[in-house]
Amino acid sequence: MDPMSAPEVATTADRITVAMAELMRRQGYAATGVAELARTAGAPTGSIYHHFPEGKRGVAAAAMRTTGAAYIQLVPLLLDAHADLPTGIEAAFATAADTMESTGWATMCPVAVVAAEIADTEPELRAVAAEVIGGWLDDGGSYLVGRGLTAADARTLIHALLAALEGAFLLARSLRSQEPLIAAGRSLAVFARALLDAAARQPA
Amino acid sequence: MDPMSAPEVATTADRITVAMAELMRRQGYAATGVAELARTAGAPTGSIYHHFPEGKRGVAAAAMRTTGAAYIQLVPLLLDAHADLPTGIEAAFATAADTMESTGWATMCPVAVVAAEIADTEPELRAVAAEVIGGWLDDGGSYLVGRGLTAADARTLIHALLAALEGAFLLARSLRSQEPLIAAGRSLAVFARALLDAAARQPA
Repeated sequence: MDPMSAPEVATTADRITVAMAELMRRQGYAATGVAELARTAGAPTGSIYHHFPEGKRGVAAAAMRTTGAAYIQLVPLLLDAHADLPTGIEAAFATAADTMESTGWATMCPVAVVAAEIADTEPELRAVAAEVIGGWLDDGGSYLVGRGLTAADARTLIHALLAALEGAFLLARSLRSQEPLIAAGRSLAVFARALLDAAARQPA
Repeated sequence: MDPMSAPEVATTADRITVAMAELMRRQGYAATGVAELARTAGAPTGSIYHHFPEGKRGVAAAAMRTTGAAYIQLVPLLLDAHADLPTGIEAAFATAADTMESTGWATMCPVAVVAAEIADTEPELRAVAAEVIGGWLDDGGSYLVGRGLTAADARTLIHALLAALEGAFLLARSLRSQEPLIAAGRSLAVFARALLDAAARQPA
């Protein structure tokens, strides 16, 4: 389930990227230093600048892109198991709630944590966050069209779904409660059902 | 609209708290130092420790509590104007989207930004975030009961609403787009309508 625990971390650049994602996920961008990154990755500081000439900012960008690509692959995995899309959405939020509680309320999305922290202070990383989130919206929207929604409704639903998921992660983690994710999943299931019912009422 | 721009900032402690909220809102907790805080507040560093013996952590806690109390007062202000609750919710999200765009996509909620950043590293501040968010859930839930929802549905809706709002703030700010807030508002309006319709169908 956790895209960060890849079975093989082959190259030094990969090791640095995975270590950065893990550090940012736990403590954010500002609190993560290059020396700590080198220690965590088991790589000399010089190799960080060798692989990422921009230093910490460059590693953060690579970590956000890699994590983002891993996360979007979870969508069909979680939702295809249910013939009924609204039921699948509600179940996926409940699974996320269980996963959070069983991991001691760990951060589920380092991209969002960093995006919130740096949006006003790191324009390059803000643009990377927008690129990653934009990819989620495109891929998630296409998936929803494949599940019977119109293109316009799919775009609305994927925006609402991602907003609810990221916000519920944040509240669940602060409150140490599954309730925000359960409520958000229920809300999104009702919305998805309403959009699907409206699409079914349209003439073909 | 902006609870941070209070017309009077009377005492030194207030000035320090308001400056901390503003700095955390722009750059997060880790990136904000006591020297910068003193400069921004126009107060000597010593007076920060005089008013807040715990230093930066204590100021952050006070800033989160003050901001949190100011924010919850916006709920009736935004929603009472509409006789119909779902319409009010959709309009409030649209107003937030306009406000964000017109302020150059500024952070709307410093509590959430800090909560995301420090949840795993600052247990005391994580507890303060939970206290502030818990207050929003209690007050917001009571408000929704007053608008015709059962206690259980009000609790579900306020969780879903806060999650959607915080997540949509984050996405809108990263993407520089009103779309996440508009979509989230539409989704929550549909959910609120479904809960109100179900309550109306129940025998009294």
